[in-house]
Amino acid sequence: MIIILKANPDPAQLEALIAWLKAKNLEIHASEGESHKILGLVGDTSAMDVDLIAALDIVESVRRVQEPYKKANRKFQPNDTVIKVANTQVGGGNLTIMAGPCSVESEEQILEVARAVKKSGATMLRGGAFKPRTSPYSFQGKGVEGLRLLSLAKKDTGLPIVTELMEIHQLEYFEDVDVIQVGARNMQNFNLLKEVGKQNKPVLLKRGMSATIEELLMSAEYIMSEGNEQVILCERGIRTFETATRNTLDLSAIPVLKKLTHLPIIIDPSHATGKAELVPPMAIAAAAAGADGLLIEVHNDPQHALCDGSQSLRPDVFDDLAKKLFKVHEVISKF
Amino acid sequence: MIIILKANPDPAQLEALIAWLKAKNLEIHASEGESHKILGLVGDTSAMDVDLIAALDIVESVRRVQEPYKKANRKFQPNDTVIKVANTQVGGGNLTIMAGPCSVESEEQILEVARAVKKSGATMLRGGAFKPRTSPYSFQGKGVEGLRLLSLAKKDTGLPIVTELMEIHQLEYFEDVDVIQVGARNMQNFNLLKEVGKQNKPVLLKRGMSATIEELLMSAEYIMSEGNEQVILCERGIRTFETATRNTLDLSAIPVLKKLTHLPIIIDPSHATGKAELVPPMAIAAAAAGADGLLIEVHNDPQHALCDGSQSLRPDVFDDLAKKLFKVHEVISKF
Amino acid sequence: MIIILKANPDPAQLEALIAWLKAKNLEIHASEGESHKILGLVGDTSAMDVDLIAALDIVESVRRVQEPYKKANRKFQPNDTVIKVANTQVGGGNLTIMAGPCSVESEEQILEVARAVKKSGATMLRGGAFKPRTSPYSFQGKGVEGLRLLSLAKKDTGLPIVTELMEIHQLEYFEDVDVIQVGARNMQNFNLLKEVGKQNKPVLLKRGMSATIEELLMSAEYIMSEGNEQVILCERGIRTFETATRNTLDLSAIPVLKKLTHLPIIIDPSHATGKAELVPPMAIAAAAAGADGLLIEVHNDPQHALCDGSQSLRPDVFDDLAKKLFKVHEVISKF
Amino acid sequence: MIIILKANPDPAQLEALIAWLKAKNLEIHASEGESHKILGLVGDTSAMDVDLIAALDIVESVRRVQEPYKKANRKFQPNDTVIKVANTQVGGGNLTIMAGPCSVESEEQILEVARAVKKSGATMLRGGAFKPRTSPYSFQGKGVEGLRLLSLAKKDTGLPIVTELMEIHQLEYFEDVDVIQVGARNMQNFNLLKEVGKQNKPVLLKRGMSATIEELLMSAEYIMSEGNEQVILCERGIRTFETATRNTLDLSAIPVLKKLTHLPIIIDPSHATGKAELVPPMAIAAAAAGADGLLIEVHNDPQHALCDGSQSLRPDVFDDLAKKLFKVHEVISKF
Repeated sequence: MIIILKANPDPAQLEALIAWLKAKNLEIHASEGESHKILGLVGDTSAMDVDLIAALDIVESVRRVQEPYKKANRKFQPNDTVIKVANTQVGGGNLTIMAGPCSVESEEQILEVARAVKKSGATMLRGGAFKPRTSPYSFQGKGVEGLRLLSLAKKDTGLPIVTELMEIHQLEYFEDVDVIQVGARNMQNFNLLKEVGKQNKPVLLKRGMSATIEELLMSAEYIMSEGNEQVILCERGIRTFETATRNTLDLSAIPVLKKLTHLPIIIDPSHATGKAELVPPMAIAAAAAGADGLLIEVHNDPQHALCDGSQSLRPDVFDDLAKKLFKVHEVISKF
Repeated sequence: MIIILKANPDPAQLEALIAWLKAKNLEIHASEGESHKILGLVGDTSAMDVDLIAALDIVESVRRVQEPYKKANRKFQPNDTVIKVANTQVGGGNLTIMAGPCSVESEEQILEVARAVKKSGATMLRGGAFKPRTSPYSFQGKGVEGLRLLSLAKKDTGLPIVTELMEIHQLEYFEDVDVIQVGARNMQNFNLLKEVGKQNKPVLLKRGMSATIEELLMSAEYIMSEGNEQVILCERGIRTFETATRNTLDLSAIPVLKKLTHLPIIIDPSHATGKAELVPPMAIAAAAAGADGLLIEVHNDPQHALCDGSQSLRPDVFDDLAKKLFKVHEVISKF
Repeated sequence: MIIILKANPDPAQLEALIAWLKAKNLEIHASEGESHKILGLVGDTSAMDVDLIAALDIVESVRRVQEPYKKANRKFQPNDTVIKVANTQVGGGNLTIMAGPCSVESEEQILEVARAVKKSGATMLRGGAFKPRTSPYSFQGKGVEGLRLLSLAKKDTGLPIVTELMEIHQLEYFEDVDVIQVGARNMQNFNLLKEVGKQNKPVLLKRGMSATIEELLMSAEYIMSEGNEQVILCERGIRTFETATRNTLDLSAIPVLKKLTHLPIIIDPSHATGKAELVPPMAIAAAAAGADGLLIEVHNDPQHALCDGSQSLRPDVFDDLAKKLFKVHEVISKF
Repeated sequence: MIIILKANPDPAQLEALIAWLKAKNLEIHASEGESHKILGLVGDTSAMDVDLIAALDIVESVRRVQEPYKKANRKFQPNDTVIKVANTQVGGGNLTIMAGPCSVESEEQILEVARAVKKSGATMLRGGAFKPRTSPYSFQGKGVEGLRLLSLAKKDTGLPIVTELMEIHQLEYFEDVDVIQVGARNMQNFNLLKEVGKQNKPVLLKRGMSATIEELLMSAEYIMSEGNEQVILCERGIRTFETATRNTLDLSAIPVLKKLTHLPIIIDPSHATGKAELVPPMAIAAAAAGADGLLIEVHNDPQHALCDGSQSLRPDVFDDLAKKLFKVHEVISKF
C-alpha cells in the first residue's frame, strides 16, 4: 500500500500516522518527491481501510498495490483450479454445460428436461427448489419437495445437480446436492458465504447484479478463507441503464477473471438477457471468449413455466445450441 | 394489466392465451384498434410474470397498470404511517435523527458518543454489532458483546437503539433492540425479510446499492405481508459510474417515495458519500427535500475507528449539523 | 400509441385531450376495461411526446406500440442492408475488419501499419486525423495532414479508409475518405448527423457511452431521414460501475440490433476494453455472436503511440487474431 | 504522477521507460520499497496518458497526484469566481434563478412567461431556440426566429437571456444572447467548446448524462484554455439504472465541485427529474446544499408545450417555489 501525503504535512499528524501504522506491524519506507512525500507500506495490509487513511487531513491519496484477496489470487496459485463434480470436471479445458429449468415443478417436468439435456450433452442438471422472487406473491419454489424431485432426476440420469441455497438452515436438505449455488442477491450475504465455506462441496457463486469483479473475488475469498476452495464463479449480467435486455452480460469478465484468479468461470446467458432468443448467440460468444462453461435454462413447456419462462429454451432449441457450443469450443481450444 | 397483441395474431395461440388467463381467474376485456388488438385484464395480477407473457409469439408488449405492491402502496392507505419507537415517533412531520458510530468498539466509546449525540438532539442511537464487510479479513464487529454495550448506552441515555441484523439466528440477541436494521446487501435476502416480518418491532430497511425504488417497495412488501407493517425506508446511495463519491445519493427518492408509499423515509448521507466533509451539505439537502429523518455516523475519534471512520463526524461537527438540520426542518415545515 | 386513463377521469379534461389528439390528425379508438379506460391512437405518433401526455392529470400511463424510428426499422425493410465500400462490402454475411492506429502519426507509421493489416486480411484502414481528447492539453491529432497521410496509405495498399469527422466544416477535407466516422461523443450532435445525412458516403455511427440501443437507432434515423441510408452501427462499450475495463462491451447489442434493424453492426473491442490483452478474446466473442465486422486498433509501436497505445495490438498479435476471427466466422456461418 | 513498478522489472525496459520520461522533460525520483520500486515524476504531466504507461509490462499501476485540470482548479485559484451577467451576478453568495420555457414558441408565450418569472424573482430568462431532440421528427425549435423573440422579451423585461448553442455557425445570431448554453449532449463536442472559449461571454456548461465530475471540469478547462474563464457549471441529472425519474439528480456534485473548483454551480431539476411534481423538492434541496443557482422550466400552458411540457411548472407554482427558495437560501446563508 502506498500513501501519498499532501505537500507540507503537519509534523505532529505525520508522526501520529506513522506510529499508528507501526502499531499495525507495518514497515514503512518513506521517500521524498519534489512536491509530495510518499510512504510505502510493507506487510499485511489486506485488513486496512483505504478510505479511512485517505480521509486524513495530511493524506492526498492512498493506493493499494496488492489485491485484497489472497486465496483466489492467481499470483499465489498460478495453475487453473479444476473442480471435480461426480464424474465430471469444471475447468481445465472442459466446457461444462449446466442445464435445466429455472424452477422444479413436477416429477414429469424435471425428468423430461433432465433426460433431454443429458442427451444433448449437458453434464450437470440445474433446477431451483428455493427461489428468490422479487414479489412475496410470486411462486417461491417447491422447497424440500423440489430437492426430492431433483434427486430423482439425478438417480434417473446420473447427472450431478446444482441448486440454490437461500438460507443456512436449508443446508440440512442439501446432502444429495452436488454443487451449492449462491445466488446473485446473496453474493454479499456474508454469513451464508462463511457457512458454505465450511462445507465440503463445490460452490457456484453468482456475481451480484451490481458487484464489481473485485467484489466477486472478495466473496469467493470469504468462502475460501473458511476452508472450502472449490469455488466456481458465475457472471450473470450486471445492471446498467440499458433496458433492451434484462441485464447487460459482461463477457469481458471472462478474460479479466482468467488473469486475476485461478478459479473457473461459468456464464449464465439466460438470466443476463431475460429473453430466449438472445440466449444462443450470447452462449456461443461466451464459449468463444473462453468461458469454462454455461448455465442455461431449459424447459419442456416455457409458456407454462411457473417462473422465468420467457428466457427458457425448448429442449430442441437447446439441443441445437449445445451442438454449436461444442463445435465452437473445439475450434477455440486449438487456438 | 394490459396485453397488446401483434397485428394478426395466430387464432389458436390467442385462444390458448385467453384460456390460460381465464384459468388464473382474470376477466378479460378485449378491444380492437385499427392495427392492434388489446386485452385488458381485471383481477389480481400481482403474481403474474410480465416477461413471460411478453415473450409469447403473438404478444407485442405487456404493461402493468397496478403497482405490484399493495400494503406499501399509498393508493390503498393514503395516510402517512407514523412509527412509534420508545418515546419518539418516526414520520408524521418529525425529523428523526439516528446517530452513532458505524461500529460499537468499547464501553467508553459508545457511552461517550451516545451522550454526545443525545445532547445534540438525536432521538435514536445507531451502532453496528454485526458488521457486513467486503473482506473476510476486516473487523467483523463485536457481535453479541456489541449488543450488550448498546444496551448499556440505551440505559444510560434513554435513547432507543437501531442496529443491523445479518442472520436470522441472531434475532435471539435482539430483545433489547428497538429498531432492526436490514442492510443494503440484504435488501433482497428474502428469508431474512420474511423473518423480520414476523417480529413485533419496527424495521429500518435500507435500499440496495443497485435496487430500484420499486424493488425497495417490494422488499418492504415482503416484511409487511408477514404481518409487520412498521417499516422505515432508508436511501443510502446507489451505485453509478461516478467515482468522486462512494455512491450517488438519490435524493429524488424522497418525493418519489412520498408519492408511492405511506411509509416514512430516512436518508443516510454517511454511507452514500463515504466522506465526512460531504455529510453536512447532503444531510441538510435531505431535510430540505422532505425526508422524515437522517441516519448519521458519529465517532468520538474517527481516525481510530475500526471501520468507516472516513465518513464519521466528530461530535462537535455533528452538534453543529444537528442545529442546522432542525432549523431547516422548521423552515420547510411551514411551507 | 396507447393511453391508459386513470379511473374516473374528469370529463372536461378528457374532452380536451381527445380534441387535442384529433387536432394532430390521430384517429382514436376508445375501449373500456372495468377499472381503466384506454385510448388507442392510430396515425403517425412518431413526433408525439410520451412524457407530456403521461404528465396529464387524467392519464395513468402511455405506451408506444410502434418504435419511434422508421427508416432504420427492420419491420419496414426486412432485408439486411449491405453497404458497398470501394471493392468490399459491409454486411451480407461478410466479416469486415477495419484496422489501423488510433491516430495517424507519420508517413512511416501509417504505411507500415496499413501494409501489415492488409496482409493480415483487413479490408479497411482506420486512423484518426481529428481526435476527440478529454484534455485540451493532449495531442489533438494531425488534422488535415493526417488525412493526407491516410490518402497516401490508401493509394499504397488499396484499402479504403474510415476516419472521424468532428465538425461540419472539416467535411471539405473528406473527399478521399471512404467511410465517415461519427464518434461516440458526437452520437447526439444532431447538426453533425444531419450534415453527414446529406453526404453520399457510408457513415460509421458509434454508440454513445451511455446511449441506449433505441437512442443509437434514433441517431441513425437522423442520418437516414436526410437521405443517406448507408449507416453502419458500431458498439464500443457502455459506461457502467465496473472499473476493471474502461467500458463494458455490450455484445448482446448484436442480436438485439439484428432483430430491430437491417443495418450492419460492427464491434470495437479496443475502445471498449481499453486494454490490448482483452481485445482478442472480445473480438472473437463478437464474431461468434454474429457481428458484421470489427474495428481494431493496431500500432507498430504501441508503447510510443501518441494516444491510446494501451489498447493497440502489435501487427503480429493482430495477424494471429485475424486468422482466428476468420476461422470462427467460417464456423458460425455454417450454423 | 507516481508509477509503481512490478517486482523485479526488466532492466532494459526500465531504462527505456526512464529515457522516455526524461524526453518529456520530467524529473524522476525513484524510491525503493521492499517489494516495489516507485517512480515519482515531477513536471507537467497533464498531457500524459495514464493508461498507456499502465499498460507497460513492467508497470503495476500509475496514479495521478495532480488533477489534470489547471485553470478550473481551486488549488490554483482559491477564491470563488463571480460572473457578471448584465446587472446580476452568478456566484459569490447569490442565488441565481434562470427560468423560462424549454422552447420559445411565440411572442405571446415568451413575453407572458418572461414577465411572470421576473415578477417571481428570476434574474435570468432561459428559453430554447435551437433544440437538441432525440428524434428527427420532433419539433427542432424555432431557430433564429426564436432568438428574435428572446430579444424582445429581454427588451421588455430587462432580464438577460441564456440559450443553447448547438453548432459553431449559429454564433453569428448570438449577439444579443447574454449567456451561451452548451447542452449535456455537447459537453464533449470539443470543437464547440474551443469556439465558445474564444467568445467574450459567460458559458453555461451542462454536465453530460454520463460524464464524471472530472470530465465536466476537463470540458470547462477546454473553454478556459482558449481564454474565456467565465464558465458556469450545471448539473442536470446523470443516467443510472433507476427509471422512476428521467435521470438521477446528483446533488452531491455541489459540495464535491465546491471543493475542486472555483467556478459557480447551477442545478437543473427540471431535466434531471423530468416530472413537474418533483421539481420543487429537488430545487429546494439544491439550494439547501449550497448551489449558486437554479435553472427551472416554466411554461404558461405546460399541457400544450411543444417540448418537455411534462417537467414545466406553471407560473403560479414557480412563484410559490421561488419564495421558498429565497427563504431557504437566506437561512443557509447564515450557517
